[in-house]
Amino acid sequence: MSKSLPKREDNYSSWYTQVVNRAGLAEYGPVKGTMVIKPYGYQLWENIKDIFDGMIKRSGHVNAYFPLFIPKSFLAKEAEHVEGFAKECAIVTHTRLKADPENGVTIDPDSELEEEIIVRPTSETIIWSMYKKWIQSYRDLPVLINQWANVVRWEMRTRLFLRTSEFLWQEGHTAHATYDEAEQETLDILELYRQLAEDFLAIPVYVGIKTESEKFAGAEKTYCIEAMMGDKRALQAGTSHNLGQNFAKAFNVTYQTKDNKEDLVWATSWGISTRLIGAVILTHGDDKGLCLPPKVAPIQVVIIPIVKNEEQTKTVKSYIASLKDELSQSGVRFFEDWSENSPGFKFNEWEMKGVPLRVEIGPRDISKNKIILARRDDIKKIEVPIDNAKSIIIDLLEDIQSSLFNNALAFRNANTYKVSSYDEFKSTIDSGGFVKCGWDGKESTEKKIKEDTSATIRCIPLEQNTKDLKCVFSKQKAKYEVIFAKAY
Amino acid sequence: MSKSLPKREDNYSSWYTQVVNRAGLAEYGPVKGTMVIKPYGYQLWENIKDIFDGMIKRSGHVNAYFPLFIPKSFLAKEAEHVEGFAKECAIVTHTRLKADPENGVTIDPDSELEEEIIVRPTSETIIWSMYKKWIQSYRDLPVLINQWANVVRWEMRTRLFLRTSEFLWQEGHTAHATYDEAEQETLDILELYRQLAEDFLAIPVYVGIKTESEKFAGAEKTYCIEAMMGDKRALQAGTSHNLGQNFAKAFNVTYQTKDNKEDLVWATSWGISTRLIGAVILTHGDDKGLCLPPKVAPIQVVIIPIVKNEEQTKTVKSYIASLKDELSQSGVRFFEDWSENSPGFKFNEWEMKGVPLRVEIGPRDISKNKIILARRDDIKKIEVPIDNAKSIIIDLLEDIQSSLFNNALAFRNANTYKVSSYDEFKSTIDSGGFVKCGWDGKESTEKKIKEDTSATIRCIPLEQNTKDLKCVFSKQKAKYEVIFAKAY
Repeated sequence: MSKSLPKREDNYSSWYTQVVNRAGLAEYGPVKGTMVIKPYGYQLWENIKDIFDGMIKRSGHVNAYFPLFIPKSFLAKEAEHVEGFAKECAIVTHTRLKADPENGVTIDPDSELEEEIIVRPTSETIIWSMYKKWIQSYRDLPVLINQWANVVRWEMRTRLFLRTSEFLWQEGHTAHATYDEAEQETLDILELYRQLAEDFLAIPVYVGIKTESEKFAGAEKTYCIEAMMGDKRALQAGTSHNLGQNFAKAFNVTYQTKDNKEDLVWATSWGISTRLIGAVILTHGDDKGLCLPPKVAPIQVVIIPIVKNEEQTKTVKSYIASLKDELSQSGVRFFEDWSENSPGFKFNEWEMKGVPLRVEIGPRDISKNKIILARRDDIKKIEVPIDNAKSIIIDLLEDIQSSLFNNALAFRNANTYKVSSYDEFKSTIDSGGFVKCGWDGKESTEKKIKEDTSATIRCIPLEQNTKDLKCVFSKQKAKYEVIFAKAY
Repeated sequence: MSKSLPKREDNYSSWYTQVVNRAGLAEYGPVKGTMVIKPYGYQLWENIKDIFDGMIKRSGHVNAYFPLFIPKSFLAKEAEHVEGFAKECAIVTHTRLKADPENGVTIDPDSELEEEIIVRPTSETIIWSMYKKWIQSYRDLPVLINQWANVVRWEMRTRLFLRTSEFLWQEGHTAHATYDEAEQETLDILELYRQLAEDFLAIPVYVGIKTESEKFAGAEKTYCIEAMMGDKRALQAGTSHNLGQNFAKAFNVTYQTKDNKEDLVWATSWGISTRLIGAVILTHGDDKGLCLPPKVAPIQVVIIPIVKNEEQTKTVKSYIASLKDELSQSGVRFFEDWSENSPGFKFNEWEMKGVPLRVEIGPRDISKNKIILARRDDIKKIEVPIDNAKSIIIDLLEDIQSSLFNNALAFRNANTYKVSSYDEFKSTIDSGGFVKCGWDGKESTEKKIKEDTSATIRCIPLEQNTKDLKCVFSKQKAKYEVIFAKAY
């Protein structure tokens, strides 16, 4: 804690790395680009996971588990899919080590596999190879399966939570009798992602569809939620794919329809990952560190006793006993910090860790039957009667949750621009922010803009207003209104 | 469902495979020895996981996540450890595929890794490489971390749930300041494993310690819970290891003691896996299929309407509406089967799936204000008034839970033998069951007995009574009383 955190405006990237580190969220593992998620970071993930797991179970989905290992030949069955993942695969070739006098252990060449195995970068292929066995008739549909798993994509440039060689995620894989049903599923999940982001992570998102060049390798359509981070860059926070019949074709998955015909099955897949933790940090963090939305914070309230001796310790402990009971009963997640560090040190530490609300209690507060409450988001302190403290704390947590969302929304809206020329577009992208503008729908335009500015089309928002709109680049009639930004 | 299930006594192994299959628990994946856990099997795992996760969190443990990939050199750092795992490792050597006109895709030889990577068979080495960074002082201890993860051990002979190339488990890895504290942790976890097995899975277990030859590769002591399956073989259902300072030495993890000295850290590790699902099947299953303990059953009560037309359907639906509300409110997990299959088909199917209690409701029952309840364990049916049905159902679920345990305990005790000679020992092992007898403590004796009979020492029970006891083989004074059995 001794060295101070860099200010975001001075070095956003270093600020991010240090917050992840100092807040105790994660570290790199020994193999390049892998991540160790520390307990505090993992609790945050568990909270996110529990919320989304509840959402999908209530909407009729079930969890299952498919193998980590995919035969190499499977990946090649869907042409675009293999194109998208071939360059970043971990490939298992052997299954045995043997003693080596020089190096300790070495690969036993006799253990070479006949067919190499891919560590899953995503599970469409292995899952559709199983669906081939499970689906025969319309009675077997829909299949609404999700899995929570680790996946591996061999990334060259990594950043904790945002892009790592291995990450944790959920991947839903559903099978349907009709295109319409698959499309509805894709959109239903997109709406759950929006709810998770906005109502729980307090991250406002644009909800839209990806262009052809940005969509998932193997999808017909990729829908997404896109958020603005504190440095005004975009972050793709979740994707939901309508896979059409591509994987059904690749694995020959057909079903008998009600009127006794044979038809290919329709598919969707959708995922969110530990990347969401990065999104939370980058959306709400400030120059004091992490700032967590109460609904997902591992610790919602930290209690810091201000005591000088054993007697004061005793007094504080008995003073807060019933408040603690009340908080427990209300399901508030709190932690008392009785460590030997100074109050000042503790304030900094728990601010760094982004705990939404701090309770301070010392002899002076006790003499007035009060406690001090300090909000993490705006660092405001108030003094409240201990008798009402529980309900005030609960109200404040709700208020912090909505303040975080409202502030992030105001920030995003203030940094989402309309432009009247391509020059203005370029200077706006250059100085940071989203540009909402017309696009003629041509891939060549998209490509040229990317070359000129590094900005990509983050999404074509579902809500469209193209009346009288012209393409920012070609000045032709706009086919879509889109969001351009530089992205993580 | 057309072909009948083999009887257990005719072909136990085929019975097991078919139950796993027909109950919809799991299947093999495309890569040899890997397992697809289907939704019904995964729900069972989720229930087991939630119970144990609650236990360890209440006892002060936290979850985290460590990488799947371990540098090859790490594994070699602890001599016994590498010896134990080297022969069954999945080894990653490359990170890129490229197009190949003949085979679709092939390995890009330019992507060969400098140092090969091992897919974790267990995580001691990678975790202790991190603890090296996290532990400096006695203030950092104890570290009580657990992870829920997949691990890979390249097995030649696999059997679903019992032995697969990839499986799911929890692995706890704790660090302590003293030997005594580590030993206490090892035993505390062992007790949680016993509770999980006996109080939730209804599986009685012997609690004991492994012999030197059977302990974990790298442990000082391995404690275990051992259960008897329906074919009288033993199954190791959970292990808790006191690792001494072996991994601290291998990774040079020292800490500053309170009196300013430097000492190596003491370690434990402990794990249970999806193997427990195999244990549940093999302990409680019968010739009708799976039989699940209510506390972990994904569905505790299945409601089967006996109806012939739309009108009866309506009547039954309104008749059970308030019972369903009551069951929901009491947290009973129930499912209504309104599918088009016949009642007889449904009875068989849900018996195969091991649902503890079946509710049958038809017009005749309604006319009497009754419902029929059929237990899965003893297939007994009773008729009860619908007004009391909820509390009767709850009582019956408790009764089924304890009956399953008591029956398994009686079975185990009836098949655990004392013997008076080595000949009797051999014939007893041969005809099936556990033998509880004296052992002189010599590895040579243990080895000879294994050669003669295939039986191994499953554990040295914590409760010992060696007074006047002689070794079953050498006739010398017994050092320990032990359990011998053939094992899975």
